[in-house]
Parts: sequence; structure tokens; C-alpha cells
Amino acid sequence: MYEEKYMREAIELSKKCLVSGTGGPFGAVIVKDGKVVGRGSNRVTLDNDCTAHAEVTAIREACRNLHTFQLTGCDIYTSCEPCPMCLGAIYWARLETVYFAADRSDASAAGFDDSFIYNEIDLNWSERKVSALQKMRTEAVGVLQQWKNCTYRIDY
Amino acid sequence: MYEEKYMREAIELSKKCLVSGTGGPFGAVIVKDGKVVGRGSNRVTLDNDCTAHAEVTAIREACRNLHTFQLTGCDIYTSCEPCPMCLGAIYWARLETVYFAADRSDASAAGFDDSFIYNEIDLNWSERKVSALQKMRTEAVGVLQQWKNCTYRIDY
Repeated sequence: MYEEKYMREAIELSKKCLVSGTGGPFGAVIVKDGKVVGRGSNRVTLDNDCTAHAEVTAIREACRNLHTFQLTGCDIYTSCEPCPMCLGAIYWARLETVYFAADRSDASAAGFDDSFIYNEIDLNWSERKVSALQKMRTEAVGVLQQWKNCTYRIDY
Repeated sequence: MYEEKYMREAIELSKKCLVSGTGGPFGAVIVKDGKVVGRGSNRVTLDNDCTAHAEVTAIREACRNLHTFQLTGCDIYTSCEPCPMCLGAIYWARLETVYFAADRSDASAAGFDDSFIYNEIDLNWSERKVSALQKMRTEAVGVLQQWKNCTYRIDY
């Protein structure tokens, strides 16, 4: 269930990035059973890590804190609608609910590529701005098939 | 320009995950000017980090090695078509070309959620499996507008 204090905290984290100049103005908080289990702010330019968006950073912290690679039963509060990378991370984390404040159009208006990347993901490889080529499929499929038959694998 | 030795290396990394049981059977290599600048294999279950896919891990390593948050002029070789999280990371990293071996349908056949997440991203929030709610947009947009007017910001 939505609680405003967590959204306030996510937006406070986004303000801190802005004031300190440590990264894009984004913050996120992960909540489980009424407790904050992870916090993140954007650290892209601070850490030289283009994957260090607020949501990804918060998910990583929550995974560390809870000693798990799946955050079932957790919600995320984020100051802005997740970009495709972060939305993908949210699915892999098995988060329950996404509470977001600004949206992708607001992010675009502030100069971020969120809407552009959403549009690109929707296209076929041949239509995208990034070029791509499929090679050696047979070899890689062989490895995937071995995984499927592997008795000691850990599914995620 | 595609060079098979790098794809072989990405697939070798995927095999190592399989044999060692350290994560999903995926590997990726990032190449710039004929040199490997980053390598990654899937470390989700090993590190308790659901964002630690091979491509994300390789991008992070390349960023660290090159001391940059943008990998302009780099290509990625990956043993499997990137999931939406990894494709988003590829866009944020400004990679040039994606060479992939297996594709999302092969990943699905091996039990991975890649195709499911691609389908979800294509939907509106109201149609997705993960629930969502937008709150406090005005407050968050205020922060984004300050960012746009901020003279010391670092764009990414």
C-alpha cells in the first residue's frame, strides 16, 4: 500500500543529487513490510557507471541487505518513471509495485533519453539506431540447452 | 567490424558459468579499437545481484577500465541477445554495435524471462503484470526543471 513518506524520501534523494552535483536528479527507495530495505540515487557520473541509475542502485542495495537475488514482496518508490533498463531490472527483481513521480516525458523534457530508448526497444534490430548482427547462434544455443538439462543450476 | 574470436570468447564465458554453476550461462565482451576493454559473465546468483547480467557486468568493467561513463566507439559481443535491461544499458553506454549469438526465443526456451519482459515493456502500465501508481509528479518535475537550469550539471 502506498505511503507518501517513502515517495518524499525518493524525491529528497533526487534533490541531493541535484544539489551535490553527484549525478542525475533521481532517487529511489525499496520497501518491504513497512521498512526501507534499499535506497539509491543516480551515481552515473560519480562512479563512471552508466548502469548506476537510482532504481538499479536501490535494487542492488536491497539485494545485498536481504541476501537474495529476488525482491519478492518489495515495492519501489522512484522519483521518476523507470527507464527500460531499470524497468527490466524491476522485473528481474520480481518487485511487486512501482510508485513513480515524474514520468518519461518529464525526463525527456529535462534532457534524458528515457523516451528515446523506450521507442528504440519497440523496434526490430534493423530499425534501431544501434546496429546489430547475429552470429554463431548454434554454438550458443548448445550452451543454453546444457543449462536446461543441468541438475545443479540455480534458476532466477 | 565483426571478429569471430570475440564471439568465441563471449560463448566461452557463458560455458564457464554453466560448468562452474556460478550463474546463468551468459557471457559478454566489449571491444574498442581491436582490444578487449571489458568482460562479463552472469553473476546474479553468485553475487546476489539480479542486475548482474553478463552485458551489464561487462559494461561496468569497461567503464571502470576506461574511466568513463560512456563507451562511444565500443562494440559488445554477447552470447545471447540482450534482455531489455541490458539493451537499455547498451543505449546508456552509447555502444556502437551489438553482436549476439543466441536470441530471446532461445533464452525463453531455456527458461529465462527475456521475451516475457520484452512483451511487458511494450504495454501500458495498466496492462502490465507489475502494478504501478503515479504520485507527487509536481514535486519531482520541480527537481527535474532545476536540473535543466543547473550550470554545473554533467550530462550523460
